[in-house]
Amino acid sequence: MSSIIIAGNKMYTYDYLFNFTRAVFIKMGCSQSDAEIIAEVFLAAEIRDHSSHGMLRIKDYYELWKAGRINVNPTIKIVHETPSTAVVDGDNSIGMVAARRSMEIAIEKAKNAGTGWVATRNSNHFGIAGFYAMMALKKDMIGICLTNANPLVAPTFSVSRMMGTNPIAVAIPARTQPPFVADFATTPIARGKLAVAEKKGEKVAYGFVQDKNGNPTDDPAILKSGGSMLTLGGDRVHGSHKGYCLSSIVDIFSAVFSGANFGPFVPPSVAYLPVLDKKVGEGTGHFFGAMRIDAFQPADEFKAKMDDWITTFRMAKPAEGEERVLIPGDPEREAEQRIMRDGIKLVPAIKKDLEEIAKALEIPFS
Amino acid sequence: MSSIIIAGNKMYTYDYLFNFTRAVFIKMGCSQSDAEIIAEVFLAAEIRDHSSHGMLRIKDYYELWKAGRINVNPTIKIVHETPSTAVVDGDNSIGMVAARRSMEIAIEKAKNAGTGWVATRNSNHFGIAGFYAMMALKKDMIGICLTNANPLVAPTFSVSRMMGTNPIAVAIPARTQPPFVADFATTPIARGKLAVAEKKGEKVAYGFVQDKNGNPTDDPAILKSGGSMLTLGGDRVHGSHKGYCLSSIVDIFSAVFSGANFGPFVPPSVAYLPVLDKKVGEGTGHFFGAMRIDAFQPADEFKAKMDDWITTFRMAKPAEGEERVLIPGDPEREAEQRIMRDGIKLVPAIKKDLEEIAKALEIPFS
Repeated sequence: MSSIIIAGNKMYTYDYLFNFTRAVFIKMGCSQSDAEIIAEVFLAAEIRDHSSHGMLRIKDYYELWKAGRINVNPTIKIVHETPSTAVVDGDNSIGMVAARRSMEIAIEKAKNAGTGWVATRNSNHFGIAGFYAMMALKKDMIGICLTNANPLVAPTFSVSRMMGTNPIAVAIPARTQPPFVADFATTPIARGKLAVAEKKGEKVAYGFVQDKNGNPTDDPAILKSGGSMLTLGGDRVHGSHKGYCLSSIVDIFSAVFSGANFGPFVPPSVAYLPVLDKKVGEGTGHFFGAMRIDAFQPADEFKAKMDDWITTFRMAKPAEGEERVLIPGDPEREAEQRIMRDGIKLVPAIKKDLEEIAKALEIPFS
Repeated sequence: MSSIIIAGNKMYTYDYLFNFTRAVFIKMGCSQSDAEIIAEVFLAAEIRDHSSHGMLRIKDYYELWKAGRINVNPTIKIVHETPSTAVVDGDNSIGMVAARRSMEIAIEKAKNAGTGWVATRNSNHFGIAGFYAMMALKKDMIGICLTNANPLVAPTFSVSRMMGTNPIAVAIPARTQPPFVADFATTPIARGKLAVAEKKGEKVAYGFVQDKNGNPTDDPAILKSGGSMLTLGGDRVHGSHKGYCLSSIVDIFSAVFSGANFGPFVPPSVAYLPVLDKKVGEGTGHFFGAMRIDAFQPADEFKAKMDDWITTFRMAKPAEGEERVLIPGDPEREAEQRIMRDGIKLVPAIKKDLEEIAKALEIPFS
């Protein structure tokens, strides 16, 4: 079954889109197992309701592949290590492949040393950071994942696009409660939301972007005329320098630790932007961490404490007009239940892109 | 020489205040070496121009000691460990003593395992987080320090005070450039700034605090009537849920990992607030990390890359009306140079507190 029709809208099943995505990447030359990893991460974004990192991005990878800018048969290897650390060279692979392998290495290191920390270079856009952090949960470990990204964001007091939306993901297991899963960009909003507002002809709130001179603006299209995104906090008064610190930390951990390109030199994740003239490292950088919970407390005790923590915060008093207080991870988990039941909706523009790719690669898609 | 007179203002030398602080804590029963650690951290806050964590806080510790609420002769010990981790019991010590010992353990672990991670329970307020992160720099390591703190901050959508201003500090060495040192609360502003505005009869910007029902307010005294501080981001539109994630992560790493009190159960750091009825762990919690830079890259290469990173960001174009773009750590380093030259100024209220303590403990102070 490829789809479910709800209220006239065609909704795709998880399996249909998974199989389609796998087929696309196999046709591009990926191994079956790599194609499955890639499909799993794209679909994880869809069902967690982060479609900005889901099927939308298949076209970006398809175009990079056509332009010969990614390696579909990478040899991913450890190039440096200690008992609790490793640096991984992703061999210019599709980001998901290098990222998943790197997180597996972090988990292996943690088994022996208590914690494992892997910095990865020579990679590309890897989808949602939360996916890799959550890999640790099944092993009774805390998972951490950071990545740098295309430069769109200006440091405090600056108008230069020096950093990506550089996300932080942390996943922590509990016992009877669902896990704590934080996965967020170090900017007030995701880039995708600017694009959506622009398409709708809407303004955005002040505090998201600035013009090329550093003046506040509510124009979501300002990036096209030299504007830049602001860091979490928005302006100096409201702590944008703290967002700048966070974004910098993510960039340094991902790229200086690994030997990837940092800051303004992160390579574009889309083929319509040219390869940058200057390189300061290899590809995009990520950083992964895995910490055994029993490296700190007996595992049962740790998980019982997390249950307590979650329950305590869930019982916080809601503000006037609010129904409830959420725990990081709640919205995505609820989306996952709903979307696995109701299906995945693709907006017409994405459906059209996928139809074109399907036709070019001679894969059925409808 | 105790003081320098500049433009009619009495300025204290570092050495005078260091010796005075050491004498205070020796009189309270601390060992000479513990008293020196404590004085060093208080003075580090003063010279880095974070006087909210400096001499101002001596009175808080003095009152806690008079009330028999802290242990001046602690036995600090490791209660659980793996090659790269440890849990430390601070034995209800003055926070600086447990924190410094914990960071030393993290550094020791890192020497052997590449990285070292220490969660500390049964501690108290430890001054500035950046001090401990910066201990790693001399060892060619990256230092990380987190701590939870008295609950004043509400999660997104809530009016309950569930979290502290829970800071994050990260210090990363460079070669010829000064180190990168980020040290920031996960709220838009520090608590101390509310107190200052209140004393001056000024309003604060919207986005710092809310009233007891969750309405925006510019009243810096609102905490006294059931209000709460907001997380970094300020409101949901501007990403307060990301600040909530950050503050939660700091709380869980500091308290769930270590077995300290989390969230609303963190004990007060001042004697005028009663001991809480409910305990979910022991004392206040901290978290420390040390990572050898050569666990990722040869040390010289790593430091040269950090120089590049710093130089690149320093050359970002300033916004209109701004002179320059700062690197995390610049303001504090410049303050340190200025204050070590010009001396430390104490506001009359703090001077008065110190005079009273000096008199009670029979220590000279003028």
